[in-house]
Amino acid sequence: MEKKRPLILISNDDGITSMGIRNLVNIMSEIGEVVVVAPDGPQSGTGHAITVGNTLRLDPTDIFGDIPAYECSGTPADCVKLAKHFVLNDRLPDVVVSGINHGSNTSISVLYSGTMSAAIEGAIEGFPSIGFSLCDYSSTADFSHCRRYVKEITEEVLRTGLPKGVALNVNFPPKRNENIKGIKICRQARAKWQEEFDLRYDPNGRRYFWMAGNFVNFDKGEDNDEWAIANNFVSIVPCMYDLTAHHGIAFLNEEWEIITRK
Amino acid sequence: MEKKRPLILISNDDGITSMGIRNLVNIMSEIGEVVVVAPDGPQSGTGHAITVGNTLRLDPTDIFGDIPAYECSGTPADCVKLAKHFVLNDRLPDVVVSGINHGSNTSISVLYSGTMSAAIEGAIEGFPSIGFSLCDYSSTADFSHCRRYVKEITEEVLRTGLPKGVALNVNFPPKRNENIKGIKICRQARAKWQEEFDLRYDPNGRRYFWMAGNFVNFDKGEDNDEWAIANNFVSIVPCMYDLTAHHGIAFLNEEWEIITRK
Repeated sequence: MEKKRPLILISNDDGITSMGIRNLVNIMSEIGEVVVVAPDGPQSGTGHAITVGNTLRLDPTDIFGDIPAYECSGTPADCVKLAKHFVLNDRLPDVVVSGINHGSNTSISVLYSGTMSAAIEGAIEGFPSIGFSLCDYSSTADFSHCRRYVKEITEEVLRTGLPKGVALNVNFPPKRNENIKGIKICRQARAKWQEEFDLRYDPNGRRYFWMAGNFVNFDKGEDNDEWAIANNFVSIVPCMYDLTAHHGIAFLNEEWEIITRK
Repeated sequence: MEKKRPLILISNDDGITSMGIRNLVNIMSEIGEVVVVAPDGPQSGTGHAITVGNTLRLDPTDIFGDIPAYECSGTPADCVKLAKHFVLNDRLPDVVVSGINHGSNTSISVLYSGTMSAAIEGAIEGFPSIGFSLCDYSSTADFSHCRRYVKEITEEVLRTGLPKGVALNVNFPPKRNENIKGIKICRQARAKWQEEFDLRYDPNGRRYFWMAGNFVNFDKGEDNDEWAIANNFVSIVPCMYDLTAHHGIAFLNEEWEIITRK
């Protein structure tokens, strides 16, 4: 008897028409049965937003031919939630994959990333989940060098599973670089965006802003995702949604005078 | 010589007209010099979203009388970023406080919370930062029992500082409960939202959804924020924005065959 093909749920944050998700759908179709639920437009920088004060749309589309696909008016996290309830019905995906994002989600960018919010939402639901991002912001980026690794990493996750509460943040160096040297398991680099705001005036003389920014890396280590990408490795950071800073608990219990002891 | 009053930056996610931020402004005015930069409308559930593909507005308002205040078209994280660059200029806040949120941000809700995204953005910028939330969703909630603790906690943070990369997630039991028993330093409870989507049809016969949900607590411990609130304590969870799951790194390095060793 033929082994049952794994069920793969795909989402992203660049929207269902982006090249990145098309590449991901193509790769995943070689591995298993694919269902796509993705935003109907770009949602970059949406973080782990959900739609609580407004209505949501979810409509089928034939954009991927015979592959079942739905476009959603909500965020990537909304997409995963709606997929579970109204698209997959009672079937549970064997893996949730998100991306491939047009742009880096290394380091602190994981917080702002809609791509990773879909993966983290999958992990909250108990599904092995992966976010894929290419460190190239172009809408016509070349994803060809990612294919082999996207496939290998997904197959490895299907084989071994992931620890409870963990989602993978996978980033690829841009194509212009030399050949990829391999895969590195990393921690999140210590870095931040140094924002710059471009102040402009509209035709009515009212001021408005565009956010821009420079990425500043404070991390001297060689075990983080920034180092891996800069040295032409694929970086994988296992991420968790339990934000508890346990060293912070110790600090407050030791330093604060207003704590109620049990 | 009189000691310099601390500089306090205030934001929230319910919008600058909410009762929660008005309460916070009143309390903070007793402690230091206050500057408010908050969304011009409700932003609940916005997570750590930022505005990257659209313009931002930032306009002064006299809603708090003589206290400098600005309303922003963006997210809570945008507010903190714009405050740093265009409102505070080169002055650095001694503390960033966000809230008081109308509704719980315990457990997994920290991920979806705009209140906490403002606090976490403050921590990324290196400022001691606190998000305050009342476990009561009513827009006319009674905040009076929070006052003493909001003040004490903020003064304690001003006194001791916080570990680098840590922001505090403070939640208060609703007023209807008996007297608060004290403050507990907690870890994030293991719980999730079990979504329910209400399927409806618009006047044109097209379907749409409202997201609703029930909070499901899986956590049997007595050291988490859900336990603290249920037992009428103020809960404080120190949160960090480094999402690295270090046990996940060990798992992948041990279990995976495709990893490149150095």
